[in-house]
Amino acid sequence: MKWPAGIHSGGTACGIKQGGVFDLGLIVVDGPAAWAGTFTRNAAAAAPVRWSRSLRGRDVRALVVNSGNANACTGEAGERAVQRSAEAVAGELGCSAEDVLVASTGPIGVPLPVTKLVDAVPKTMASLSDDVEGFAQAILTTDTRLKTASARAGRATMVGVAKGAAMCAPNMATMLAFIGTDAELDGGALQTSLGRAVETSFNRISIDGCESTNDSVFLFASATAGSIDDEIALRALDEVCSDLAHQIVTDAEGATRALRISVTGAGNGEEAAALARAVADSVLWRAAVHGADPNWGRIVAALGAVGRDLDLQDIDLSIGPELVFSKGEPVASSEAAAKAMDVDELDVACVVGSGRGRAQILSADISPAYVVLNAEGSS
Amino acid sequence: MKWPAGIHSGGTACGIKQGGVFDLGLIVVDGPAAWAGTFTRNAAAAAPVRWSRSLRGRDVRALVVNSGNANACTGEAGERAVQRSAEAVAGELGCSAEDVLVASTGPIGVPLPVTKLVDAVPKTMASLSDDVEGFAQAILTTDTRLKTASARAGRATMVGVAKGAAMCAPNMATMLAFIGTDAELDGGALQTSLGRAVETSFNRISIDGCESTNDSVFLFASATAGSIDDEIALRALDEVCSDLAHQIVTDAEGATRALRISVTGAGNGEEAAALARAVADSVLWRAAVHGADPNWGRIVAALGAVGRDLDLQDIDLSIGPELVFSKGEPVASSEAAAKAMDVDELDVACVVGSGRGRAQILSADISPAYVVLNAEGSS
Repeated sequence: MKWPAGIHSGGTACGIKQGGVFDLGLIVVDGPAAWAGTFTRNAAAAAPVRWSRSLRGRDVRALVVNSGNANACTGEAGERAVQRSAEAVAGELGCSAEDVLVASTGPIGVPLPVTKLVDAVPKTMASLSDDVEGFAQAILTTDTRLKTASARAGRATMVGVAKGAAMCAPNMATMLAFIGTDAELDGGALQTSLGRAVETSFNRISIDGCESTNDSVFLFASATAGSIDDEIALRALDEVCSDLAHQIVTDAEGATRALRISVTGAGNGEEAAALARAVADSVLWRAAVHGADPNWGRIVAALGAVGRDLDLQDIDLSIGPELVFSKGEPVASSEAAAKAMDVDELDVACVVGSGRGRAQILSADISPAYVVLNAEGSS
Repeated sequence: MKWPAGIHSGGTACGIKQGGVFDLGLIVVDGPAAWAGTFTRNAAAAAPVRWSRSLRGRDVRALVVNSGNANACTGEAGERAVQRSAEAVAGELGCSAEDVLVASTGPIGVPLPVTKLVDAVPKTMASLSDDVEGFAQAILTTDTRLKTASARAGRATMVGVAKGAAMCAPNMATMLAFIGTDAELDGGALQTSLGRAVETSFNRISIDGCESTNDSVFLFASATAGSIDDEIALRALDEVCSDLAHQIVTDAEGATRALRISVTGAGNGEEAAALARAVADSVLWRAAVHGADPNWGRIVAALGAVGRDLDLQDIDLSIGPELVFSKGEPVASSEAAAKAMDVDELDVACVVGSGRGRAQILSADISPAYVVLNAEGSS
C-alpha cells in the first residue's frame, strides 16, 4: 500500500528488539503539515505521549516511533530520550525538534536505549519511500499481521497503519495508529474529525479492559490534493479507523474468535456503550466464547452488574441468530446456541429496553494462550 | 467444626448434580431466630435472592440451599421453584414458607429441577446435626476445599461456612456464606454488624471482576448464649468473614498464587479501594503474577486508568519487599522482583500520594487453567 502524495515512511532495525527485527519507524511529510492526535487519558501517560501532546496546534514535519520499549514510567531519562530522538530526526531534516512527533510501544518501565535509536535515524531516513509496509512492520509488538487500511475521500485518499495486540480497552489500547491524507484540512477540522472517528472505532474495542500508557492515533494532512468537504473527510476517516480497529480485534493476543456486542434500547448512547463494554470485559463470558459454550447467564450477570436498574423482563439476548433469553425466561436450546457460537466472528445482541440508546463494542475471546503469552511478559 | 448451640445443619445429594455429589444443604435454628443478610446488587439477582431479601426484618426458622443450579434468569418457573422449596422445608418444621430462607449457586439460566430438591428435603432434614461439614460440602461448586471459620465472641461464638470459586468481584461474588452465632442480638444490630464486616472482607476480594446474580451472606443468631456487646460481636464477625474471604481467594478457580493489593495515600478510602480494585481486576497483571513476571508497568497502567489525576512522582510501588518504582523512576532489578513474586501469597503495595485513604483488596493470579475451566462452562 502507498501513502498519499507528500507522505513518506521508512522502517529499520535499530537494535531495541533482538534479532534484527524492525523496531524503528519514521514518517516524513513534505513541508510543514497540519496534524491531529488523540492520546491515552492514563495518568501514567508515557514520555513520548506527553511530548507529542504538547505539540498540538503546531505544524510538524515528521514522526519517529519505536517498538520494543514503551518509554513509560522511565522518569527524566525517558523525557531526555524523547528529546534526543526528536533532535536526531530534526537534524536530518533541518527543522526544529518541536517539528517532530514521537511515539513508542512495548514494555513499561524499561529505560529506552536511545543511543541505538539515534544512531539508526540516518539509516531509517535512507529507507524512506511511499510504501507503508516497512513502517507498518516496525511498529508491531505481539501482532501477528501488518495492519493497513485505505479509503477514498473525494479527490483525496486516507491511508492508515496500526498496531494492536494486548491491552486494548476503552480510551484506546496499547494501540498506535498513523493515518495520512493528501487532503487539505486545517488543524481544527482534522482534530474534530479524528476525535469523532476514534470515538466510534478505536474507542469501541475492548479486549482485556486494560488501558495503556502509550495509546496514540495520529493524522497527518499533506494537503497536496487540495481541500475537500469535512463530511467526506470524516466518512473516509471513519472507514479507515473502523477497518483498523477490526483488524486489531481479530489479531488480539491469543484470540481465536472475534466478538461483536451490540446493545440497543438503552436510555442513551453512553449507557448502551457502558453495558456493551461490561459484556466485552467479562473474563468469564470471553472464556465461554473461547469454548463455544452458550453460557449466556454470564452476559446477563455482566449487564446487571452495570445496569443496576435493568428489568429482566425487558431484556432480549441473541447469540448469533439464536434468541436465548427473552422476557425473563430462557428460550433456545443450548445445542442451537452452541452451534451458533462456533464461528470466527460472533454477534451478541442485547436488547435492554425500549430506549433509543445503542452502541457496539468489538472484542475477542480469551484463550489459555493469552494467559501464557502474558505470563511471559513479552508484550 | 460445630455450630453454636441452637443451630443445626445437614447436607445430602438430591440429584441436581450428577454422581451423588452433595448438592442440597439445610440450616435449622431452634425457635424463630433473628437474622441478617447482604445480597448481590446485580439487576439480574436470582429468584432465591429476591425471596430471601423480601423476608428481611422477619425472624426465620431455616434456610435451604442448593448447588449445581443458580435458579437465575429462570422466569416465573424459578419463582415457583423457590416457593416450593420453602414450603417443603416449612412442611417438615410446621412453620410458614415465609420462615424459610432460600439460596442457590451454579449455572445461570437453567430451569431448577425443583421436584428433586423437594423430594430430598425429608432426607436432608434427617441428616441434621451440629456438624458443619455436610452442609459445607453441599454448597460447593468448583471449590476444591471446604471453607469454614470460627471466632470467640465473649461468651458466644461465631461459626461460618462459605463457598467461592469463580465470579468473585466487588459486591460479593458467586459466593455464599452462612454464619451462625449463639449470641443474642436483635435484627438491626445483626444487619449493621454484618454490613460492616462484609464491606471489609467479602467486598474486598476481586478475582475476575465478574459480579454474580446469587451472592448472599446470611447471619443467624440462636440467642442461646445471651446478649453480648455489639463491638465484640462485630470483631468476631470481622474475623470470621475475613478468614472465609481469604479462603475463597486462595481457592479461586485455577489460581496458583494469592495477591494482596494495598493502596495507601489516596484522597479517601473509596478512592483507595477503586485503585486497589483496578489492579486486582487487571487481567494483564494477574497473568504476570501467574508467571512471576515483575511487569509492574501493568500495575501503574491500571492505577493510571482509574486515577486520572495521579502524579507519577507521588507513586511508590513495592512487590513483596522490593521497591520497584519510586518518584517516576524504576528502582529495583527485575531479578530481585521476580524472586519476590515466587511466593504463595504476594503483597503488592501502592503508595499513591500523601492522603489518608487506604484499602486492601485480595485477589489471585489468572492461569491457563482458569480459562480452560470456564470455557467448559461447568461452574
